[in-house]
Amino acid sequence: MKAMGLSVVRIAEFAWSRMEPTECHFDWAWLDEAIDTLAGAGLRVVLGTPTAAPPTWLLMAHPEIAPIDATGRAKRAGSRRHYGFSSPAFHAATRRVVDAMARRYGAHPAVVAWQVDNEYGCHDTTFCYSPAALAAFRQWLRGRYGSVDALNEAWGTTFWGQQLDSFESVDFPVGQPADPLPCHALDWQRFASDEVVRFNRMQVQLIRPHAPGRPVLHNFMGLFADIDSHAVAQDLDLAAWDSYPLGHTEVAPFMSEDERNRWARTGHPDITAFHHDLYRGVGHGRLWVMEQQAGPVNWAPWNALPLPGMVRAWTWEAFAHGAELVSYFRWRQLPYGQEQMHSGLNCPDGEPDVGALEAAEVAREVSREAARLTSASLKTRTAPVALVLDFPSMWMARIQPQGADMPGFGTAVAYYAALRRRGLDVDIVGADTDLALYPLVVLPAVLHVGDVLQERLQHAASVVVCGPRVGSKSASLAHDERLLRGAMAPALPMRVRGVESLRPGRAVPLQGGGQVQQWRDLCEPLGVTEVRVRDDDGWPAWLQQGRWHAHASRVDDDTLEAWLAAAAHQAGLMPLAAHELAPGLRLRCRGDWRFAINRGPGTARVPAPESTRFVIGGRELPPGGVAAWQVRTP
Amino acid sequence: MKAMGLSVVRIAEFAWSRMEPTECHFDWAWLDEAIDTLAGAGLRVVLGTPTAAPPTWLLMAHPEIAPIDATGRAKRAGSRRHYGFSSPAFHAATRRVVDAMARRYGAHPAVVAWQVDNEYGCHDTTFCYSPAALAAFRQWLRGRYGSVDALNEAWGTTFWGQQLDSFESVDFPVGQPADPLPCHALDWQRFASDEVVRFNRMQVQLIRPHAPGRPVLHNFMGLFADIDSHAVAQDLDLAAWDSYPLGHTEVAPFMSEDERNRWARTGHPDITAFHHDLYRGVGHGRLWVMEQQAGPVNWAPWNALPLPGMVRAWTWEAFAHGAELVSYFRWRQLPYGQEQMHSGLNCPDGEPDVGALEAAEVAREVSREAARLTSASLKTRTAPVALVLDFPSMWMARIQPQGADMPGFGTAVAYYAALRRRGLDVDIVGADTDLALYPLVVLPAVLHVGDVLQERLQHAASVVVCGPRVGSKSASLAHDERLLRGAMAPALPMRVRGVESLRPGRAVPLQGGGQVQQWRDLCEPLGVTEVRVRDDDGWPAWLQQGRWHAHASRVDDDTLEAWLAAAAHQAGLMPLAAHELAPGLRLRCRGDWRFAINRGPGTARVPAPESTRFVIGGRELPPGGVAAWQVRTP
Amino acid sequence: MKAMGLSVVRIAEFAWSRMEPTECHFDWAWLDEAIDTLAGAGLRVVLGTPTAAPPTWLLMAHPEIAPIDATGRAKRAGSRRHYGFSSPAFHAATRRVVDAMARRYGAHPAVVAWQVDNEYGCHDTTFCYSPAALAAFRQWLRGRYGSVDALNEAWGTTFWGQQLDSFESVDFPVGQPADPLPCHALDWQRFASDEVVRFNRMQVQLIRPHAPGRPVLHNFMGLFADIDSHAVAQDLDLAAWDSYPLGHTEVAPFMSEDERNRWARTGHPDITAFHHDLYRGVGHGRLWVMEQQAGPVNWAPWNALPLPGMVRAWTWEAFAHGAELVSYFRWRQLPYGQEQMHSGLNCPDGEPDVGALEAAEVAREVSREAARLTSASLKTRTAPVALVLDFPSMWMARIQPQGADMPGFGTAVAYYAALRRRGLDVDIVGADTDLALYPLVVLPAVLHVGDVLQERLQHAASVVVCGPRVGSKSASLAHDERLLRGAMAPALPMRVRGVESLRPGRAVPLQGGGQVQQWRDLCEPLGVTEVRVRDDDGWPAWLQQGRWHAHASRVDDDTLEAWLAAAAHQAGLMPLAAHELAPGLRLRCRGDWRFAINRGPGTARVPAPESTRFVIGGRELPPGGVAAWQVRTP
Repeated sequence: MKAMGLSVVRIAEFAWSRMEPTECHFDWAWLDEAIDTLAGAGLRVVLGTPTAAPPTWLLMAHPEIAPIDATGRAKRAGSRRHYGFSSPAFHAATRRVVDAMARRYGAHPAVVAWQVDNEYGCHDTTFCYSPAALAAFRQWLRGRYGSVDALNEAWGTTFWGQQLDSFESVDFPVGQPADPLPCHALDWQRFASDEVVRFNRMQVQLIRPHAPGRPVLHNFMGLFADIDSHAVAQDLDLAAWDSYPLGHTEVAPFMSEDERNRWARTGHPDITAFHHDLYRGVGHGRLWVMEQQAGPVNWAPWNALPLPGMVRAWTWEAFAHGAELVSYFRWRQLPYGQEQMHSGLNCPDGEPDVGALEAAEVAREVSREAARLTSASLKTRTAPVALVLDFPSMWMARIQPQGADMPGFGTAVAYYAALRRRGLDVDIVGADTDLALYPLVVLPAVLHVGDVLQERLQHAASVVVCGPRVGSKSASLAHDERLLRGAMAPALPMRVRGVESLRPGRAVPLQGGGQVQQWRDLCEPLGVTEVRVRDDDGWPAWLQQGRWHAHASRVDDDTLEAWLAAAAHQAGLMPLAAHELAPGLRLRCRGDWRFAINRGPGTARVPAPESTRFVIGGRELPPGGVAAWQVRTP
Repeated sequence: MKAMGLSVVRIAEFAWSRMEPTECHFDWAWLDEAIDTLAGAGLRVVLGTPTAAPPTWLLMAHPEIAPIDATGRAKRAGSRRHYGFSSPAFHAATRRVVDAMARRYGAHPAVVAWQVDNEYGCHDTTFCYSPAALAAFRQWLRGRYGSVDALNEAWGTTFWGQQLDSFESVDFPVGQPADPLPCHALDWQRFASDEVVRFNRMQVQLIRPHAPGRPVLHNFMGLFADIDSHAVAQDLDLAAWDSYPLGHTEVAPFMSEDERNRWARTGHPDITAFHHDLYRGVGHGRLWVMEQQAGPVNWAPWNALPLPGMVRAWTWEAFAHGAELVSYFRWRQLPYGQEQMHSGLNCPDGEPDVGALEAAEVAREVSREAARLTSASLKTRTAPVALVLDFPSMWMARIQPQGADMPGFGTAVAYYAALRRRGLDVDIVGADTDLALYPLVVLPAVLHVGDVLQERLQHAASVVVCGPRVGSKSASLAHDERLLRGAMAPALPMRVRGVESLRPGRAVPLQGGGQVQQWRDLCEPLGVTEVRVRDDDGWPAWLQQGRWHAHASRVDDDTLEAWLAAAAHQAGLMPLAAHELAPGLRLRCRGDWRFAINRGPGTARVPAPESTRFVIGGRELPPGGVAAWQVRTP
Repeated sequence: MKAMGLSVVRIAEFAWSRMEPTECHFDWAWLDEAIDTLAGAGLRVVLGTPTAAPPTWLLMAHPEIAPIDATGRAKRAGSRRHYGFSSPAFHAATRRVVDAMARRYGAHPAVVAWQVDNEYGCHDTTFCYSPAALAAFRQWLRGRYGSVDALNEAWGTTFWGQQLDSFESVDFPVGQPADPLPCHALDWQRFASDEVVRFNRMQVQLIRPHAPGRPVLHNFMGLFADIDSHAVAQDLDLAAWDSYPLGHTEVAPFMSEDERNRWARTGHPDITAFHHDLYRGVGHGRLWVMEQQAGPVNWAPWNALPLPGMVRAWTWEAFAHGAELVSYFRWRQLPYGQEQMHSGLNCPDGEPDVGALEAAEVAREVSREAARLTSASLKTRTAPVALVLDFPSMWMARIQPQGADMPGFGTAVAYYAALRRRGLDVDIVGADTDLALYPLVVLPAVLHVGDVLQERLQHAASVVVCGPRVGSKSASLAHDERLLRGAMAPALPMRVRGVESLRPGRAVPLQGGGQVQQWRDLCEPLGVTEVRVRDDDGWPAWLQQGRWHAHASRVDDDTLEAWLAAAAHQAGLMPLAAHELAPGLRLRCRGDWRFAINRGPGTARVPAPESTRFVIGGRELPPGGVAAWQVRTP
């Protein structure tokens, strides 16, 4: 590891059965030795709490720990994540092992950070339908609503006559003949996420007293919205995530077959960067990549080989987007177990695989340019564009999609990608972020615009662009009382009479070119609001009033790019022209550094000033190529 | 409402929890006020019994009311239709609330009709796998067969050695390793439908004594065959249905993607009319539309906006097909609850949506032409063509499809549409209808031709056209003893040696053009039967003997149209020529009125006599246009 | 039957409820009569034990016999195969009926063979999740591993910390949040297969003492790998299988839509022959077809009519591949029951269907040429090519597919078909077969190459061709310790760094033409190994060292054919040239007979020597045609 240029190693995140081989009897000898060995070689350690892998004996002794699925069946031990977040017995066992671990290693000089659990919610484990979960849900509702009358009001139980007499009458929002009440489903989702927050906080509180100065983090996942990462991260020092560009491209539901084939070996040009920018925001500006894909994975339906150079390019891309650390998954491909086909830096026989060679290359490059790559020169700055991503709004879209292909990350990624194709850097921020510093603020799919966000939008001087549906829902997942688009009133007065979702084979032409796909709000501009573009049957597609823009329609990629570029110009930004970036080429600033990554099939020309002196790479970037250069700080 | 020209309002169909907030304690004050308010404004009321929405307290007190799904799990309260039809406790609760309601409002002068429950079977709720249902099923079998020997004989339990010793050995026909016995499945389907009949009858019998002169109805659904509507309607005065042209076009399993895209904003030209003609027959000639789509719905995967004019056109279409009343769903889009995205006549803020404007336009047109639109001039007459649709036959096709795309409405709608494209009006009738008055009788998919139907076919002078499979099954879902096609013997002697189902990518050319798709009976003509058309490998595709026609093969739409037109000519009818009607244009007679509706993408020319004086619309109909004119009654 | 030329009849395989109408009371009168009737007509009888159809009374008395599905629900009686293989109560009942039957009919002169049960595993019935099965699984593991430490080692429970304390901690490998440990899943699959072996052996041991000289067989299924047929057949005298060419073509998961349409009425040219060659190997060289498709079946999504001539052609094809007997399913189409749409030789009315006429034609042909068709002239010889098919390897591929379209029969059939298109006869053999006599040995997908197989490959002089993944797994489904391809070391030294699976839309060109699809091993040749063909990005696709070939990549059909033909030439064989056989034409030798079958859409020319005197058919074969000629034995 040392020879390869690695400096930090994450360990122990599934080793509970080794730490506590039988209930209350701990064995730390092997872990002492492992940490000492690593420390002795000059390597630092990120220590993972092992709660993602409860030992088999724990489930045998406390079967009520097992999560219950939506059909009422207990999930079995024998893989991982076989615990329910609401289980008191699991909380007790967690307290025991984490406390013991923290006491022993918290202040160990080689242990430089703590990872809590591993990939919360993986394998659909956010939700548990156990009696303990139901009791906790009822308690949570009591806390939220105070009285059952308030709950009835918020949920709208009048509809279909489903009033509740007491909190004890609340059941799970699954297994009804028809859909459950939307707010019932939303509160269940909120509760489930809050249970993760509570579980995570318990661990953090056990670790912190014993681990002074060590950041506590969690490794979040890509394409995942079952849990509000912003809320979990309130208790963390930074956010890490596990970056699998090829796997995510293969499984992202909004990716077309054509995109999956085109980017099979490089990953989609924006899917990875999107998550870097998301989790940098989640992590209060601090981003780690805890698991970086180093070769083919095992968990997608098909698992491509990264194009030569991509492990290096992904690493540089992470740095470009502000990562402080990139840790590869995994050191060596293990010859057995569920992930035996998941490659690592090294082959099962210990010989280096392509990933190892490319990781070592990055380490050499960083080492070579160490004098230039100073903390100061790399200090991440606020991007010119804020893209607001709100997990509860994603839950709302999932519960009330209205168009079968609308929910999830699709809209957010489409807006993000359109900005990025025009060379704009983006901060992805939560709904309670201070927006004052952003010239351009984009809300692709914030269905519920709460009071705080609304006030911040009003008081900033930013150009604001809202996608379809934005502001249409109340906190209780009802229509906003001011008719669907109230959030932007009075700045952008309009009335949304209704909506139309368009099936995949349908599109509505826009006057002047381009087309509507998937969705349109059916709006009437009111007062000072102007219509910039209309659908060919007259419905407004793009509305504006001063610095406020509303996209009533989901439009094709080129049109979206043009609309966002226009807003960027209005905000005083200098977006690139259409097609100025070769397809697959992306730029990113960090401090006074500039980076370019080429995922395209051919050589791409980097649009840097003529006088640029490239520190890494050059003006002509081959597929998988990376360029970096330094600019004077303005 | 009054200003809009509405005259009748349906209310209360989900309001049980408001009528009976706690067990046996009724609160009628709010409903008194609602009815009085409506009556005071000169509006009449259709009152719905609220049994589709059992209150939560009822399920808490009597958990055995909850329906049990096929896997043995109880469905939960919290949406609607969470009751099993066989539950004694639910029958008791139903009796209590319906009786109280009927006593209070039965003779109220403003209450002009009663709707029983709401959309029986919606959300897959026809079948319940509870102990009570199993006991009732066994009892029902006792009643049907008398002895278990008779049951063994009918079911053919000899096959695979599954003889039953007693009725107590009967189990549900689900969860077997392989398919259950076909007649076991069929009897379970019959029983489930009969349980709905029994439940409905109970309600009707409670209402009638207190509601003199008020018709009792149920609002049936489109594309739905889990329940025998003909049987349910034996206890009703008329049939209503809930007409959602766009939703039905989006979800009909027999609709191609191309058709879904083409008719996304108008609805398929024949799918709505098909149901009007079906439920007019179910309702003994009396048809109401209880819920007319007034804008985008919320329940299809994608939910299109009706083309401007369609709410008006659908309303006129309903009248053209004999509707006495068209009621829109719903007055106002509710801002909360499961259907918050289901539009209504009015927007959530109470302002009129497009549907309201178009509904008002119809009301003005009707009012303007009131002198002409007399009951006498509108009296629905027997159509020239009867299309026989038999629910038990649809169950048989579903249980023994033999070709994966054969069961359900597809064949019936294809035959119906072919007739309609040639301008022929159709009555869709049950298997026990008197057919003597029909020049042309079409049986697209009546797998079991019972003795009554067979006798009526024999004694009528009608030209008879049978589709593939017709008459092939006994009442016990075995082969008809006279070899598959016995029903038509001796009029059309033939022998069916077997059948072939054709996968979607396969077709067999017909001699002379056109092709076989999906299915062919492999027939030998016997005796006097002639072969009109053969497949290119020689199998008869169309057989005839005098006034009897059998289609052995499912053929492409143009060919089917030609074959049916030939039969119509033989019957003395005057079908239009192929393509005489523009695609999307349909005609319909009611009394001495003629109507034309255009769903096509362009202007369509109405093929009315040159001298026609159009009362509504004109000869050139734009998309969404309606024309009406009066003719001398012959 | 006699008139049709039939000589053997299979009966009784589902007649338990008739044999033992109530517990322990047998009724043999009807079966005595049936056998005597057949015997009286000169027909011989294959008697089936009826255990595939437990009587309803048996399940009522012993509910624990019902199989439990993976979700924990009991399957119901009322179809067939409603028993778990591990149920002691079912073993007891089986012993009672089979013993009684064997004692009564074992030595009956007309009973010439015994069929045990019927289609083991049909309808997904191999696996049962009952308490009895779990107890037996734990016992089986005790037997396999001796100690739980050995089990932990083999399964790799260290991964994700899932060590087991005792055999009592073992649970089913289903219902975990993530995948279970691969070796856990593999052992469960091995156990389930072994339970079938144990159940089958029990029956065989009951039959043999009473049935001297009568072969005992089972009728296996096509496209089925849940059970190790080689292991079951260790206790049998020969293997029978149930051959449904059209059904198998419709449902084979590796068949493209294009292939399904093209071969809808003939069956894919290689799918049936593949199974003949497989089960001839399973049956120690003795092959029967117990059920031959005689017309449309009822169980595929679509059920085509065989092309005229195919029932005859399939029969001759079976003989060509070594079948001693072809029995048709079924004598007459039954008018009721689950299979009422499954045709037979005769129509439901007893009149002969096409199948009967064609079966009779074969009987006449055989009778006509009886003098030539001697046992000696027909004695099956060892084919020039052995294709090794190993059920445990198929289980491994299913458990760890890595590419979603890789597991199952697809690869084996592709290799088989490529050999057959070049006119080569193939023996499909198990992994423990003596390979010394085969000039060419092909291992398309033997993931685990055990010591016996490896030794036999080393000691034979055969040319050996291995497909991708071959030899990559240990017996515990871990990477082979010698780096994935160790099985072939030291003959063909190479190192597999990793693998890539290719999604359906992706392909990698090969240098020199053709392309990689689905899969490639990423290899480095070592030492003496040469690279014959490379992918266009340089990875070796085909490696060779002397008589050893490894295909690192799954390639297109034409390329695979060329690669195999090259190996065949090296082995001294004379494969036909590419496209020398018309598409759909296949050849097969048996003894000194040569057969040709044409499934193509047009007339095909048989590539026999000019001087050939055809005994059946001729040089020009129409669609569905069969030719046979005799050659001098060399």
